[in-house]
Amino acid sequence: MAQTAEAATGMDALRERIEQRLADSLPRDGEPRLVEAMRYALTGGGKRLRPLLVYHAGQLAGAPLERLDHAAVAVEMIHAYSLVHDDLPAMDDDELRRGHPTCHIAFDEATAILAGDALQTLAFQHLAAMPHPSPARLLQMIRTLGTAAGAAGMAGGQAMDLALTGQDCDLNTLERLHRLKTGALIEAALQLGLLSAESPPDTVGAALDTVGQNLGLAFQIQDDVLDVTSDTHTLGKAQGADAARNQPTFASLMGIDAATKRYQSQYDEALEQLAEFGKSADGLRKLILQIRDRKN
Amino acid sequence: MAQTAEAATGMDALRERIEQRLADSLPRDGEPRLVEAMRYALTGGGKRLRPLLVYHAGQLAGAPLERLDHAAVAVEMIHAYSLVHDDLPAMDDDELRRGHPTCHIAFDEATAILAGDALQTLAFQHLAAMPHPSPARLLQMIRTLGTAAGAAGMAGGQAMDLALTGQDCDLNTLERLHRLKTGALIEAALQLGLLSAESPPDTVGAALDTVGQNLGLAFQIQDDVLDVTSDTHTLGKAQGADAARNQPTFASLMGIDAATKRYQSQYDEALEQLAEFGKSADGLRKLILQIRDRKN
Repeated sequence: MAQTAEAATGMDALRERIEQRLADSLPRDGEPRLVEAMRYALTGGGKRLRPLLVYHAGQLAGAPLERLDHAAVAVEMIHAYSLVHDDLPAMDDDELRRGHPTCHIAFDEATAILAGDALQTLAFQHLAAMPHPSPARLLQMIRTLGTAAGAAGMAGGQAMDLALTGQDCDLNTLERLHRLKTGALIEAALQLGLLSAESPPDTVGAALDTVGQNLGLAFQIQDDVLDVTSDTHTLGKAQGADAARNQPTFASLMGIDAATKRYQSQYDEALEQLAEFGKSADGLRKLILQIRDRKN
Repeated sequence: MAQTAEAATGMDALRERIEQRLADSLPRDGEPRLVEAMRYALTGGGKRLRPLLVYHAGQLAGAPLERLDHAAVAVEMIHAYSLVHDDLPAMDDDELRRGHPTCHIAFDEATAILAGDALQTLAFQHLAAMPHPSPARLLQMIRTLGTAAGAAGMAGGQAMDLALTGQDCDLNTLERLHRLKTGALIEAALQLGLLSAESPPDTVGAALDTVGQNLGLAFQIQDDVLDVTSDTHTLGKAQGADAARNQPTFASLMGIDAATKRYQSQYDEALEQLAEFGKSADGLRKLILQIRDRKN
């Protein structure tokens, strides 16, 4: 029988596992510079929040690790591609990411554009190669990832972000922006973990919906707060970069204190949803606490 | 019973059909400027070669039109996204495409990058929504499209193209480049048409393989020849643009006459493969003749 996520010894083992799976998922041939740029973007560190959400949601739903690997890698590839493109000169024009030069600085703009493109393609290929007992459900997962990543999700959020730069913007608009830009993929990560199971329980599905909605927004509000309160070394990118770009943030619209209260209560709400599942939600619970208590 | 491709009254009806399906496939909501840029890139004309290959290969394999619509739209979305990104200043830096301003000129660079990204996402979403009786075969189609579009296909070819600009390059290398950059997606279009059928006949599959290999290369060699022999008005882009960029072309490496002979014999080879299928290959045969005799 396939090994289940419960058999993993915990967060550190899963972190090691995802790093290995990401490295193994890159093309073995292809134009060397392109593949190197893909590797640079995909394996250069990061919190691996989305893959860990896949694994822990899958654990809660009873999905085997081998399937979760595919979903975890696919979601992280979408995330990695979006960072590479968001950092481009024509977009956010960032030169530093996680304390290292961004992809277009380390390589060049054309290679960064193509590496992002090819990472997105690979995400769908990789997901479509999952050994799932229900091909119909796997197709549903592909549509879920597409909805989260595309014009009605992450890419739409980034477009909205660009349109709002330098504009006045109210809190509702900012929330909608981040539900698309960050929230959609975080929610999708939880759903993909769920749908990797043979028979995902309805109660788990409903709980993960609410967890995802709270987590996506909390994560972004916290990011905005950390952008103001943390220093450049801790952040791994220029401190105050978002504010300097004259972008509306939760911190600037709500003030630091209210924004901090808001994200903390959303983390609490997410944790409450998991109460009924007892010990089997331990992994996801611990992950949410780690995110809540992060310094960058 | 579902309408079959044979019921379509021919090429013009299919051209109208694909234009309509492309327009209908765009997101109904989302950031307006992003969706407009996607529409601009997807519905701004073009030969629709790849969708027509899907329909005609599907016709030969006995696939119903409703399924072929999904595959045709998906392949054209991948093609459209690649043109938008290839035209960017950091890539080929083209300002004119099909006689109109390229996407980043008509909108802006950031929007063009995102529109390309979102079109790629939508391609996989759209394919995964095909009402196919075999979900497992549909997953195979998604992997086929991914392989053709990604680092081991189209994106890899574009990366190779950039790496070779200004470099010496022999004919074998140039062939490999274009098998990836142009050939892979043309071959995939034929395969997606084939796999849309309930029971794709093996003989058709084998023939379409060979047709695809010949067609992909013939199309590109002919493009290179037309780039030299046609004028800017007919081409819809700056005449001699490829040569001016100091890129190796089949025309420059082989000479116009040898290149012309080469692509004509490859079209002939493709047509020969279809001889055994008689009248049921009429659509595909007619399409290949149209491509062979094009002026731009």
